[in-house]
Amino acid sequence: MDEFELIERYFAELGARRDDVRLGVGDDGALIAPAPPGQGLVMVTDTIIAGVHFPDSLDAAAIGHRVLAVNLSDLAAMGAQPAYALLALSMPQADLGWLREFARGLGGLAAEHGVALVGGDTTRSDTLTLTVTAVGWVPPMQCLARSGAREGDLLVVSGNPGDAAAGLAILQSATSSIGLGAHLRERFAWPTPRVGAGLALRGIASAAIDISDGLLADSAKLAQASGVHLEIDVEALPLSHALLASHGQDRAEHFALFGGDDYELLFTIHEDASLDGLCARSDCALTVIGRVHSASEAREAGCTVARDGVAIPLDNAGYRHFS
Amino acid sequence: MDEFELIERYFAELGARRDDVRLGVGDDGALIAPAPPGQGLVMVTDTIIAGVHFPDSLDAAAIGHRVLAVNLSDLAAMGAQPAYALLALSMPQADLGWLREFARGLGGLAAEHGVALVGGDTTRSDTLTLTVTAVGWVPPMQCLARSGAREGDLLVVSGNPGDAAAGLAILQSATSSIGLGAHLRERFAWPTPRVGAGLALRGIASAAIDISDGLLADSAKLAQASGVHLEIDVEALPLSHALLASHGQDRAEHFALFGGDDYELLFTIHEDASLDGLCARSDCALTVIGRVHSASEAREAGCTVARDGVAIPLDNAGYRHFS
Repeated sequence: MDEFELIERYFAELGARRDDVRLGVGDDGALIAPAPPGQGLVMVTDTIIAGVHFPDSLDAAAIGHRVLAVNLSDLAAMGAQPAYALLALSMPQADLGWLREFARGLGGLAAEHGVALVGGDTTRSDTLTLTVTAVGWVPPMQCLARSGAREGDLLVVSGNPGDAAAGLAILQSATSSIGLGAHLRERFAWPTPRVGAGLALRGIASAAIDISDGLLADSAKLAQASGVHLEIDVEALPLSHALLASHGQDRAEHFALFGGDDYELLFTIHEDASLDGLCARSDCALTVIGRVHSASEAREAGCTVARDGVAIPLDNAGYRHFS
Repeated sequence: MDEFELIERYFAELGARRDDVRLGVGDDGALIAPAPPGQGLVMVTDTIIAGVHFPDSLDAAAIGHRVLAVNLSDLAAMGAQPAYALLALSMPQADLGWLREFARGLGGLAAEHGVALVGGDTTRSDTLTLTVTAVGWVPPMQCLARSGAREGDLLVVSGNPGDAAAGLAILQSATSSIGLGAHLRERFAWPTPRVGAGLALRGIASAAIDISDGLLADSAKLAQASGVHLEIDVEALPLSHALLASHGQDRAEHFALFGGDDYELLFTIHEDASLDGLCARSDCALTVIGRVHSASEAREAGCTVARDGVAIPLDNAGYRHFS
């Protein structure tokens, strides 16, 4: 079985069937019908590598889910409606059982969000390396960006940051886990891209980013892009019951601030905005965790964490490649 | 220097500046303004890996050129006007000199074809692995596909197939080469995507494909997609002077039929079409090398090669991954 047959067999017709896909997997490229007027194109790309972004032991289905989820999370942070994806898959050998499970994980999430897999490339490599490019639509005036946070805005996060990093630690410890531990492990293995929240925030959030490198590291990026100072109230962090019960308050806070892989949305919003309606439309919890201040000489563009209104020292910038 | 600074430094603003790029490298994704009415979206993705798709010794600038060229070649085979690209770069370490040269090679070709680099992801990996997703526009009715070749059509190829494979052999032999050998080596190292030919063929070619896996292997794919039989006249192959002079007739024919990496276009066209005007608009040589026949029990969908009208036996299906 060669490269082309592999692709045809597992990746043709994966995900949603969309009427606007005129040519999908199987030609030199994909052809999409002209978009409805006024729709801007949003494009994102993210690579995940075995042993770097996920443990080698992770299930094939979870890997397939993950490589699309991390990209849908980026689309969500732009307020885009996901539509198409292309997959570049480099792997040591063609294991049919693995491919079937991988395709099931990727295809399931794609179908859930109306995404058609329209193209790909399969190559041989010593290291399992997966790149997805995901494409969606948004009216340009409603697109979310990292810049745009204004003094006085509230800082809000979706879901329960820290759960994924704690789950990864459990996975890496190779101990069996049940109950709360299993819940955290699943939060790492099967991240939920906040597509609904991104759509609900269109034209409402003043700035947005997804948390892939850690709440604090990504807050700093949003702050710098907006030229503002963010103050996070550590006591407001929505630490999950599972995280608190299994790790205690201090470690839970550490996971929430420094842990990566949450794929939650972090955004800023006018202080008079109603979060209740947004929560309902987002289909996830939204929690105010801080406030936007103007940057100044004393408080430069960036992010600090406070407890009882007093800044606490931090010495970990979160995980970064090449650092 | 971390991942984000790397990307900002070398990949922000690479390629053409386009008025329709509202957000480029540096946010969670790229935002493109709504397209002119009637334009369909074409998307392609291709991965190249050191030691698999090019020798480890290849110049960084040539690698940067290559990863975009192979994708622009796919867009050309669809008749699309290239517009945007996203780069996923996985590398063992961040070598600034290498990155600068790589960016120069990629950016030069991008600027030449009006392509803006709008997004990317940089990760650490033991193996240098590069994936580009390239995106362009075409009116859907004028898009080229592999299917559509009809009985009686002419089979046409651009440029001089075989040069790149011969050039790769020279590169791999690690002998210094001057004159004709250097010309062939350059044809491998700096492939020319036939973007102009693809645009000239819009609505004119009945089917098209780019030759990346070898003339014969890709002819077979076009034949199967179209449900026709292709007969290539080996004596009509446009073998270059450099290829013939350095390798002789037999090896030159072998390189042209079985060698990969040419990134020429192979297409079918009505027998009454004028190639002269097409050549001028394509900015490259176009040569009739065969004919489209209907498939039948005696002559199934696929491809044969004939000399003096007599089919010659073939036993090499060209290079394929996982085969």
